[in-house]
Amino acid sequence: MTALDGLRVIECASFVAAPSACLMLGQLGADVIRVDPIGGAADYRRWPVAPGGTSLYWTALNRGKRSVAVNMRADEGRELVTALIADAGVFVDNVVGRPWLSYENLAARRADLIHLHLQGRADGSPAVDYTVNAEVGVPTITGGESEAAPVNHVLPAWDLVTGMTVTTGVLAALYERERTGEGAYLELALADVALAGVANLGWLGEAQFRGTERPKHGNHVYGSFGIDFETSDGQRVMVVALTEHQWAALRKVTGTQEVFSALETALNVDLNLEADRYRIRETIAAILRPWFADRSLAEVSRDLDSARVLWGRYRGMPEVAADPAPVLSTVDQPGIGEVPSARSPLRWNGKYGETTTAASLGDHTDEVFSEVLGLSGGELGRLHDSGILG
Amino acid sequence: MTALDGLRVIECASFVAAPSACLMLGQLGADVIRVDPIGGAADYRRWPVAPGGTSLYWTALNRGKRSVAVNMRADEGRELVTALIADAGVFVDNVVGRPWLSYENLAARRADLIHLHLQGRADGSPAVDYTVNAEVGVPTITGGESEAAPVNHVLPAWDLVTGMTVTTGVLAALYERERTGEGAYLELALADVALAGVANLGWLGEAQFRGTERPKHGNHVYGSFGIDFETSDGQRVMVVALTEHQWAALRKVTGTQEVFSALETALNVDLNLEADRYRIRETIAAILRPWFADRSLAEVSRDLDSARVLWGRYRGMPEVAADPAPVLSTVDQPGIGEVPSARSPLRWNGKYGETTTAASLGDHTDEVFSEVLGLSGGELGRLHDSGILG
Repeated sequence: MTALDGLRVIECASFVAAPSACLMLGQLGADVIRVDPIGGAADYRRWPVAPGGTSLYWTALNRGKRSVAVNMRADEGRELVTALIADAGVFVDNVVGRPWLSYENLAARRADLIHLHLQGRADGSPAVDYTVNAEVGVPTITGGESEAAPVNHVLPAWDLVTGMTVTTGVLAALYERERTGEGAYLELALADVALAGVANLGWLGEAQFRGTERPKHGNHVYGSFGIDFETSDGQRVMVVALTEHQWAALRKVTGTQEVFSALETALNVDLNLEADRYRIRETIAAILRPWFADRSLAEVSRDLDSARVLWGRYRGMPEVAADPAPVLSTVDQPGIGEVPSARSPLRWNGKYGETTTAASLGDHTDEVFSEVLGLSGGELGRLHDSGILG
Repeated sequence: MTALDGLRVIECASFVAAPSACLMLGQLGADVIRVDPIGGAADYRRWPVAPGGTSLYWTALNRGKRSVAVNMRADEGRELVTALIADAGVFVDNVVGRPWLSYENLAARRADLIHLHLQGRADGSPAVDYTVNAEVGVPTITGGESEAAPVNHVLPAWDLVTGMTVTTGVLAALYERERTGEGAYLELALADVALAGVANLGWLGEAQFRGTERPKHGNHVYGSFGIDFETSDGQRVMVVALTEHQWAALRKVTGTQEVFSALETALNVDLNLEADRYRIRETIAAILRPWFADRSLAEVSRDLDSARVLWGRYRGMPEVAADPAPVLSTVDQPGIGEVPSARSPLRWNGKYGETTTAASLGDHTDEVFSEVLGLSGGELGRLHDSGILG
């Protein structure tokens, strides 16, 4: 992948959002240098970890980056990092309370700097995916109808959305700089990404008009028809009918056309409308359930595919890990061994990019400071001896 | 917002992912023209809808775009849309089975075209957020420990992540085109985004090593400490301690330092380690619960904030809708009235961008074909009369 060939990005960040952004920039061809404190940042040992203790999380999110370890509490360490940022011209961070990494300070060293500063909240106070998700109201509408308490989803979804919003901001600023020569200071708060996310789905408008909470609806797809069914061999499938075509296919394959026609008359509904399918979703599911309960997954799979029904199978994570999908690959990660690893999902002119491994912490300290800042072996030795470089 | 000033993007897409991408490109300054069939695409009336029936979903996702309605079953309609795409040079679509919209066909008309084609699966077969999420194993680890069945989360998270991956791809290709003059054909499958998402969190590596499913853990944060607590006035808060500092702050404010010190000795654990906090998460939660149960939300809020504990409050969607956060605004949406609306969460040089409304379907048909393709009033009249334009 070469779209970002020649671009260098400095990352001073941890956890999911900013590291996942810089992972993508690397997959697109940028030379990403992640700067960590000596010994690693707060995310260095996060779960999940491999049997030997190496973090599967950290190594997955930091693949393809060069790793530099610097004592940033020392003035000399700060100066070295500042010089790296000034050289690269693109900087992504999520640190708080380090005025020496402020845009003002850095832009004084590189006028056309692109600096994206990631925050918890826009006022600078901290927030993480789990607190933000509670605040935007998603857990209160997740889970079964009879469940009073909020249900947190396990996917750190806002982190992942924020990561790709970071890349979007950096790349838009790069495009602008390419044409105008001007840099930019971009700020992005996880809490704002989440608020914009629920607003953009129309959910805030709905809540305003309704005035009360949308009732929980279990595994149903909101405003349409979609629900899970169990097969005769104890497997489970998610079946969805958003469009008229999908709804027609589902009725046909299950032989329920006459049933639903009669039901439309009896209940005075038009099941070609998503809204009506949603209104009587439990009835529809109850009518279809025996068809699935009578068939094995193999039969269900064959029949639904040949009828072009929109569906997916629930899989456990171990099965997903063994999926030979082309976007996945296996890499030999130092400290871990053979482990599943994802390519960038963006295929460029028909091809996926390569996958790679993560460096060990500080692996590229000497290489980077020698190559980028021209430090000599003697200088590097002194900086290691004095605890400035790790 | 002017980063993408002068850029024109043609969108032939529906549902969440691609429209949310083009919404963002518009917020960054691009002139986005959404092309729909006359009468609207499959997403035109999707829930949630306002009391008058106008889709809150469609209007939220299509704000700031110009709307063109064309009969794309007619050769003349296809030729008009092809000419629009050739003029703009950037095209985003998620359509299937329209060979006239293939990259090959379009690049013959504009050699440096950037075309991003969004798919369900990489093999071209259909998939949506709800089926993809089942397939990557997230519902099997979501929900309470005693719940055997998978729990779907309601947020179409993969759609939102995919949307920002679309903008990332388009902008990387633009940056490359700006420097090399070369266009690109990008493909992106929702299913690949989801597989890469769980892989990048280290979850596939974990599943491979464990060989069995990670047990469900309710509202707990995996691998660390985070859980919800109820206050004396029936409110609920999400409290998280990922770092040592956050953990120290939580113990201090709840006056449980001695308790946890004694517990560390008794159980031979080191609660400064996230992994150990996760292992005895139920015990920690049980020790802290009475502190929250004895205090009102106002008291909890005051005490946690002054102690710098990382926490968030569970809010219902109606309360979120009334949030005066700067990223949100109210717009007067034609067909709906006053409705909450989000700015782009990306602040550029200290400022949020503006919010705006969605056009009605086909509002800009004449304007666009006159301005971009130079069609005369007479030609437009003929095309309307013959049902080519709506």
